[in-house]
Amino acid sequence: MPPGGFTASGKESYAVIYADNAATTRMSEAAMDTMVAMMKESWGNPSSLYAHGQEAKEVLEKARKDIAEAIGASPREIIFTSGGSEADNQAIRSAAALGRKQGKMHIVSTAFEHHAVLHTLDALREEGFEVTLVDVHENGLVVPEEVGEAIREDTCLVTVMYANNEIGTVQPIREISAVCRKRNVIFHTDAVQAVGHIPVNVEEDGVDMLSASAHKFHGPKGVGFLYARKGIRLKNLIEGGAQERGKRAGTENVPGIAAMAVALKEACANMEGNAAHLTKIRDRLIAGLREIPHAALNGDETRRLPGNVNFCFEGIEGESLLLLLDDRGICASSGSACTSGSLDPSHVLLAIGRVHDVAHGSLRLSIGEDITGEDAENIIRNVKEVVSYLRGFSPIWRDLTAGKKAFIL
Amino acid sequence: MPPGGFTASGKESYAVIYADNAATTRMSEAAMDTMVAMMKESWGNPSSLYAHGQEAKEVLEKARKDIAEAIGASPREIIFTSGGSEADNQAIRSAAALGRKQGKMHIVSTAFEHHAVLHTLDALREEGFEVTLVDVHENGLVVPEEVGEAIREDTCLVTVMYANNEIGTVQPIREISAVCRKRNVIFHTDAVQAVGHIPVNVEEDGVDMLSASAHKFHGPKGVGFLYARKGIRLKNLIEGGAQERGKRAGTENVPGIAAMAVALKEACANMEGNAAHLTKIRDRLIAGLREIPHAALNGDETRRLPGNVNFCFEGIEGESLLLLLDDRGICASSGSACTSGSLDPSHVLLAIGRVHDVAHGSLRLSIGEDITGEDAENIIRNVKEVVSYLRGFSPIWRDLTAGKKAFIL
Repeated sequence: MPPGGFTASGKESYAVIYADNAATTRMSEAAMDTMVAMMKESWGNPSSLYAHGQEAKEVLEKARKDIAEAIGASPREIIFTSGGSEADNQAIRSAAALGRKQGKMHIVSTAFEHHAVLHTLDALREEGFEVTLVDVHENGLVVPEEVGEAIREDTCLVTVMYANNEIGTVQPIREISAVCRKRNVIFHTDAVQAVGHIPVNVEEDGVDMLSASAHKFHGPKGVGFLYARKGIRLKNLIEGGAQERGKRAGTENVPGIAAMAVALKEACANMEGNAAHLTKIRDRLIAGLREIPHAALNGDETRRLPGNVNFCFEGIEGESLLLLLDDRGICASSGSACTSGSLDPSHVLLAIGRVHDVAHGSLRLSIGEDITGEDAENIIRNVKEVVSYLRGFSPIWRDLTAGKKAFIL
Repeated sequence: MPPGGFTASGKESYAVIYADNAATTRMSEAAMDTMVAMMKESWGNPSSLYAHGQEAKEVLEKARKDIAEAIGASPREIIFTSGGSEADNQAIRSAAALGRKQGKMHIVSTAFEHHAVLHTLDALREEGFEVTLVDVHENGLVVPEEVGEAIREDTCLVTVMYANNEIGTVQPIREISAVCRKRNVIFHTDAVQAVGHIPVNVEEDGVDMLSASAHKFHGPKGVGFLYARKGIRLKNLIEGGAQERGKRAGTENVPGIAAMAVALKEACANMEGNAAHLTKIRDRLIAGLREIPHAALNGDETRRLPGNVNFCFEGIEGESLLLLLDDRGICASSGSACTSGSLDPSHVLLAIGRVHDVAHGSLRLSIGEDITGEDAENIIRNVKEVVSYLRGFSPIWRDLTAGKKAFIL
């Protein structure tokens, strides 16, 4: 098979199947066109008084309106950030600052959050906060009643992700938010994997703060947003100029923000059709990969993102699997791209109860809208071959098949 | 004069003179071409193992190398951020965190720093830090000996900007850094207005940390960098993934970073010629605007950025001046774009001793490389006409000319 490549037109030039859309997506043509047009025409500083600056300001506010509309918010409730991580940090830091003032220094979350959440919680722990992580169970789903049980008198924040970035499980957000509202606790959700992929509406979902990132829905890298319900007092993460109503300093990335708005509108307009197509392909992938012996799907079978497939294969190393799939023109990952290079197994897989050995042999396929049925068969065939090949010289697999060690999956 | 506009080719379609390059610059064609190529071809996640991700990683590391080279640093000393404000915040927060651990909770700075510095210092004051602001004098220049006198046993940081964003004065950075080094205090400089415009070399300049922003040197918005000398322990502003050696989380904005590197290389390659041209035009503007009665240049006449002109005109409102200049196709500002909309006079002009009334009537022209001699005459003529027109119905001017009030300038 020839090496993979991507042409300038944005389509693969030869046989590359990009199945790592949870790590990042290719920009849509509309988003790219907007980005280019804005870089050429609306490059003024939106804070400038003259017409060229005010034009940029209009572009900015139009984008804010479009984005607000896409998630059922008001424009004033949207703060533009450099991405999902910044939005997560600011949301959690804001609720914590408020909590500290009120003597409420307890936060409820889960063990399978993105590191942008978990590491911020770690930092807060060092500053005196207490954190309770509720169970995500074997199916990768939070039980709302258990969130309720974890909430205390001094709880200032519940933060639970909308959809998990590794195993794709979609949480019962409305039920969790209802529990939080009843107990009068701020509810934040990292919706980086959800926005643009499944219906998200802050009103109907009842969330108080929500983080999103453009490059996860075919927008540009380096831009995202934080939704904060009216009345939530945000704390600045970046101090400085009066941009974003004084809540986020720095000259606004107008071209990036405009492109994000276009990408999100596009994603929402095509969501139903895309989701139907992806769900069909996803289910075929799950069925096909299940034929591999001693393999198991990670996360609930149906309550997951339309484009997410995540498997553990006993007796193999995920990294070798990825490298050999790459040789065969398939781009996939073992888990989050943000922690690759780390030798530790995925914290998400450990959180759903996979043991170290098994968690090491994981494969995440996060497929995109342009995937075909033929691509799916291609993936299934290649994964089967590569898993079989790797097991051929795996000492663990030898021990397992020789009965010296017990199979787990 | 027809209203101004910018064509898709990136050149003005008609008579617009953009003289607000300190607020933001138009992207260079090379930077834009790089941005577009990267968005189309190198959009992978640099943390991904497969070839498409590793290609993006290579682009990222090439950009880091080029940027490091441009300022005399090592690649490992460069951390990519979302811009200058984030870099300022992270630099100051890092030094403060270290200071707190060592029981050193005093910081030395100046009153005319950018708000990204001043507001971070305000936040630190609330957290128990003490801040001494050294005088910037009438000429807008810090005296290194005075920095030395302000340093105490418990000083953890000196932060002085390289060149001021409003009045363009270039500080004696080497002398300030020498004082800091002698006293073993970390020295940070906000070099957002300097990098790409005047020679900056972290080794020769002796700075420990330095902030820069791409959109100030014809790169894209939403991207910048922080230089931190080897051995300086950075504190994360944004927690999360292991990007940027664990010091700045979030998927890297590879297209933006690559475009920033190209813009900086270009700016450095053309720096000498550009500076000579700009200095000539700047000096003509200063001479021409000085012919206006009761006008005064703000900041030192020669120790200023090649492209910066800043005047106060007695008896007028800066905002009206800008709006009328805009009508005549001239984009200028009264000071920092980041604080426009604020009714307060510029904190920079107050810091160099201008009184409120005078500070209100300020004009900053920050010219770009494509400015011509004809543009300069055009600006001079229009500013003269507009100042005269505005004074015609200014009650302050009436009082001044009637002798009811004393002229200051």
